[in-house]
Amino acid sequence: MASLSSPLDLSHHFSVTTKRRAPSAVKDFYKYFVIPGIANLTGGMPHASYFPYDTLEASVAHPQRFPTVPGGKKAKGSESSERIVVPKESQSAAPKKIDITTALQYGTAEGLPPLAGFVNQFVREHLHPNVPYAGGPGTLLTTGATDGFSKAIEAFTEVWNPDRDGVDSRQGLLCEEFVYMNAIQTVTPRGPNIVTVAIDAEGMLPHGPGGLNEVLENWDYRRGRRPHLLYTITIGQNPTGGTLSVERRKQIYAICQKYDVIIVEDDPYWNLQYPSAQELQAQYRKTPVNPTLSKRNYNAGKKSSGYEFLDSLVPSYLSVDTDGRVVRLDTFSKTIAPGCRLGWMTAQPAVIERLSRIAESSTQAPSGFVQAMVAELILGQQLDDKSTASQKHSGTEKAWQMDGWVRWLEGLRAGYEHRMQQMCSGLEEGKYVAIGTERPDEFTSSENNEDSWEVLDKVQMYDFAWPTGGMFVWVKVNYESHPLHQKYGTARLAKALWVHFTQKPHLCLLGPGTMFSPTEEVRARGLRYFRLCFAAMPADDVAPITRRLVDGFSAFWQRKNLDGLEDPESTAQAMERLQMEPSVNFLGMGC
Amino acid sequence: MASLSSPLDLSHHFSVTTKRRAPSAVKDFYKYFVIPGIANLTGGMPHASYFPYDTLEASVAHPQRFPTVPGGKKAKGSESSERIVVPKESQSAAPKKIDITTALQYGTAEGLPPLAGFVNQFVREHLHPNVPYAGGPGTLLTTGATDGFSKAIEAFTEVWNPDRDGVDSRQGLLCEEFVYMNAIQTVTPRGPNIVTVAIDAEGMLPHGPGGLNEVLENWDYRRGRRPHLLYTITIGQNPTGGTLSVERRKQIYAICQKYDVIIVEDDPYWNLQYPSAQELQAQYRKTPVNPTLSKRNYNAGKKSSGYEFLDSLVPSYLSVDTDGRVVRLDTFSKTIAPGCRLGWMTAQPAVIERLSRIAESSTQAPSGFVQAMVAELILGQQLDDKSTASQKHSGTEKAWQMDGWVRWLEGLRAGYEHRMQQMCSGLEEGKYVAIGTERPDEFTSSENNEDSWEVLDKVQMYDFAWPTGGMFVWVKVNYESHPLHQKYGTARLAKALWVHFTQKPHLCLLGPGTMFSPTEEVRARGLRYFRLCFAAMPADDVAPITRRLVDGFSAFWQRKNLDGLEDPESTAQAMERLQMEPSVNFLGMGC
Repeated sequence: MASLSSPLDLSHHFSVTTKRRAPSAVKDFYKYFVIPGIANLTGGMPHASYFPYDTLEASVAHPQRFPTVPGGKKAKGSESSERIVVPKESQSAAPKKIDITTALQYGTAEGLPPLAGFVNQFVREHLHPNVPYAGGPGTLLTTGATDGFSKAIEAFTEVWNPDRDGVDSRQGLLCEEFVYMNAIQTVTPRGPNIVTVAIDAEGMLPHGPGGLNEVLENWDYRRGRRPHLLYTITIGQNPTGGTLSVERRKQIYAICQKYDVIIVEDDPYWNLQYPSAQELQAQYRKTPVNPTLSKRNYNAGKKSSGYEFLDSLVPSYLSVDTDGRVVRLDTFSKTIAPGCRLGWMTAQPAVIERLSRIAESSTQAPSGFVQAMVAELILGQQLDDKSTASQKHSGTEKAWQMDGWVRWLEGLRAGYEHRMQQMCSGLEEGKYVAIGTERPDEFTSSENNEDSWEVLDKVQMYDFAWPTGGMFVWVKVNYESHPLHQKYGTARLAKALWVHFTQKPHLCLLGPGTMFSPTEEVRARGLRYFRLCFAAMPADDVAPITRRLVDGFSAFWQRKNLDGLEDPESTAQAMERLQMEPSVNFLGMGC
Repeated sequence: MASLSSPLDLSHHFSVTTKRRAPSAVKDFYKYFVIPGIANLTGGMPHASYFPYDTLEASVAHPQRFPTVPGGKKAKGSESSERIVVPKESQSAAPKKIDITTALQYGTAEGLPPLAGFVNQFVREHLHPNVPYAGGPGTLLTTGATDGFSKAIEAFTEVWNPDRDGVDSRQGLLCEEFVYMNAIQTVTPRGPNIVTVAIDAEGMLPHGPGGLNEVLENWDYRRGRRPHLLYTITIGQNPTGGTLSVERRKQIYAICQKYDVIIVEDDPYWNLQYPSAQELQAQYRKTPVNPTLSKRNYNAGKKSSGYEFLDSLVPSYLSVDTDGRVVRLDTFSKTIAPGCRLGWMTAQPAVIERLSRIAESSTQAPSGFVQAMVAELILGQQLDDKSTASQKHSGTEKAWQMDGWVRWLEGLRAGYEHRMQQMCSGLEEGKYVAIGTERPDEFTSSENNEDSWEVLDKVQMYDFAWPTGGMFVWVKVNYESHPLHQKYGTARLAKALWVHFTQKPHLCLLGPGTMFSPTEEVRARGLRYFRLCFAAMPADDVAPITRRLVDGFSAFWQRKNLDGLEDPESTAQAMERLQMEPSVNFLGMGC
């Protein structure tokens, strides 16, 4: 392997506020803090004896709680838990302490050293062992991916105000045409163009109509500056469930190089990749398997992650990031819990340095409670050589360590993959419905007649691709096949269907496609879609709820009118708002 | 009491991004989420069974751990702790659950309902029972006061870019002339004028030279727009330790009304008010006591807070906020622990609504770990009527409840007040030094001679006001009294003194006044000051370290030269940077 080049200087992309942030002097002064015996009268911090917590503790899962095979049997004792304890003061040597005195005190924006160190090691050695620029990437803890994206937007965009600024200074954000709207609503108040790029079941299209190259090559400067920032979810895309192949990544990256575009890769579902999706879909539909995403070793011939599971995952844009133009957002929301409000950013060190300065003036470090608890879960008390054997035994053995962490991630993948399989097989089995004119009762009791009845009037109500990752199935409804389509049209049927599902006995709340449509133009197409989340319900409910969903579709296709679904008050009115007002904010729904 | 008016519409002060934020539709849709039996397929959230935490637990202090009298004896058993447990699923009725399933799941930016509800109740009923506008204020949880200030700045300021914008659009931030620089460094990247207002030992001056009225009345529009935002720490001001009287608040508020200025009141030390400071200072110096801050009931004749302790505290600007122009920042950093990264904002509801929208696109809610742990500490499992008596006994009795919370705050006050007393009495006793020409030994052993020797050459090395609140003593050094002053001047002596203290046997790290000087002009005066924090060291160290400090001053005044203190390398160079570069960022130092 040839020696790697340093990452490019991206400072021309920094916003004026980001350029203006003062450098940190903390490192210069750390040497004074550690003078033996020095009385530090500078810092404005309380003494740890005044913290009301004497320990922080938890019962936690073993990393092997979940099997690694979808639908596999749980191992004996897998439900049992282990105790972890964060002590008031660790017996370990500085600066890798996990204790209340450290974690609940002020710290730098870099975060609790053991946790920040773990994340950095995981990223550089295991998750992205082959980042192709000299020195490799840096990391910064965040309070979750939303916070990370907010910081990226602060770093790389200016506010555009039409009352003040010429259109020539308006910036733009590129994104998939159906997209996680929380991200879009984070950036729209700053006024950029939201520029959608066409997608297919895999993800963003580099070439062809509506693809990234076309969008940038034919950029209409009357709209503003050519977009310099791309926001993308490449694995288990939200809402479409696609996973971008390495080949595509290379093509898109080359276009971003050509047009000097920064890639913000939001990757909450990277460990939730489903090798079985394409095989099962092909099996159900008797179609050939797309070979690009079948199970393989992505690090073969390069530096291994050290784990077969991690090697088998489609790698990040970081794996092709020769320039250092990728800013990646990770979160513990889907691997530990959303309420952690804990994640990290990965980018070239000069970008991480600026992001740290932004953090110092806003969030500072993530909460010490979550930092300590996650560090203790994964790392445990890292006892040094002076610790006794019994301390070592009780301290480090319980913690997951890197092996346990990776094992946990694989167990989660299997759990969610199993849910995906159950929902998708149910949807496959129910996507057709028999509709037609009513027939006399005597006919239906006869074997042959019922069969011919079905063949005659069977229509497909919806279609979907089995998601290769993530938490969602993206269902395209075929409203044209509905008997009332000519009378009501797609838009009215779509709204009525959503309301229909909220009523008994169906009782399903669906995510309308318009909630993932960033522009007016996309919204017209978004009407046809629903996003279904198979992650949030109890595991045993996935199959029966899917059945209820399929029955709800069938019932809707049997309807002779939309009575009770278009009440101008209440439900339908709310739906109107949901469908028609893109500026309404659903961020609190955890969408 | 006449009926109160509604707060003013402040929307003309909102930044363009803040105006553009979409309204929330969560409340409209909550009704669908709670349809009995509904299968919610909308939310993109993991299932709680995949969270690796089965419980969260802690050993916590009793609220009466610390005595309420400075230096008072600890009660028997005060060091013992109580166990708290956050269960996987609470037995309590929705929506006030404190459990892992709720706290570690996605939630709205409003935060965990029991904690958000507690904060709101505490604010409206106890901390600020007399806010003079109709309906009273709203609250929003933050990830600490720095986050709160960042959100206020985002809400109320535009970025000013001299390459793009005329000077007539440049906004300004008013602040005390010596100020908490983290706040200033949060706002400076946005480009406003930083406009200092003169202070005295109490705090900001409304009238007179350099006072708020003069600054606004004589505003020079060639600098930009007249400032519309005031940042202030009014209790235990950082760094000067002053506490603003109600009379001053009224005067300053009236000026803010006249010039339409929003007041951002940052109040981390509101419970750390020291009634003894002025009395002890007067006692040491044989001067009269200023009656404005002596112990009293500030809510006398109005609605009581319900607690004698809270009634005795100088109230917030909110208590005079007839217009709703006060945005107050609170934090749990000094009442629980800085590592909580938890606080709240208080303002009129229309402002809180916009701040919530900002939170949704950045931090979202604070970490569920800290929310659950603090809620469990204070509130415990709020068991409903269906709970058994034994559950109730084990659940609610352990938690602090409102009474315990207020008791804890009072205990902290006493602890820090005692530290303040120890440091200040030590500083009082050591502020004079005897210097002069050396005399033969035989003279010093004689009683009368020693006395006359001292009278002849006793000089005052520094002066200070006893802080009426907070964590700091602000010491003004009298460099003119140093024998080498004529030779070296104030600036060189100031730097040398800082270095002198870092050396043996003194070993004290002091916060130079320049670190709290927001402008070049103030910095010239800031050179003369040090900020001393009495909060961060062990309680028993305050007196001996103060003694070391006083001895260090004396030793410096005995010096015949600055040898070893002006080494161009190392310490002195770093000090140079510390003193001379206002743009250097010390935020990570917890200052």
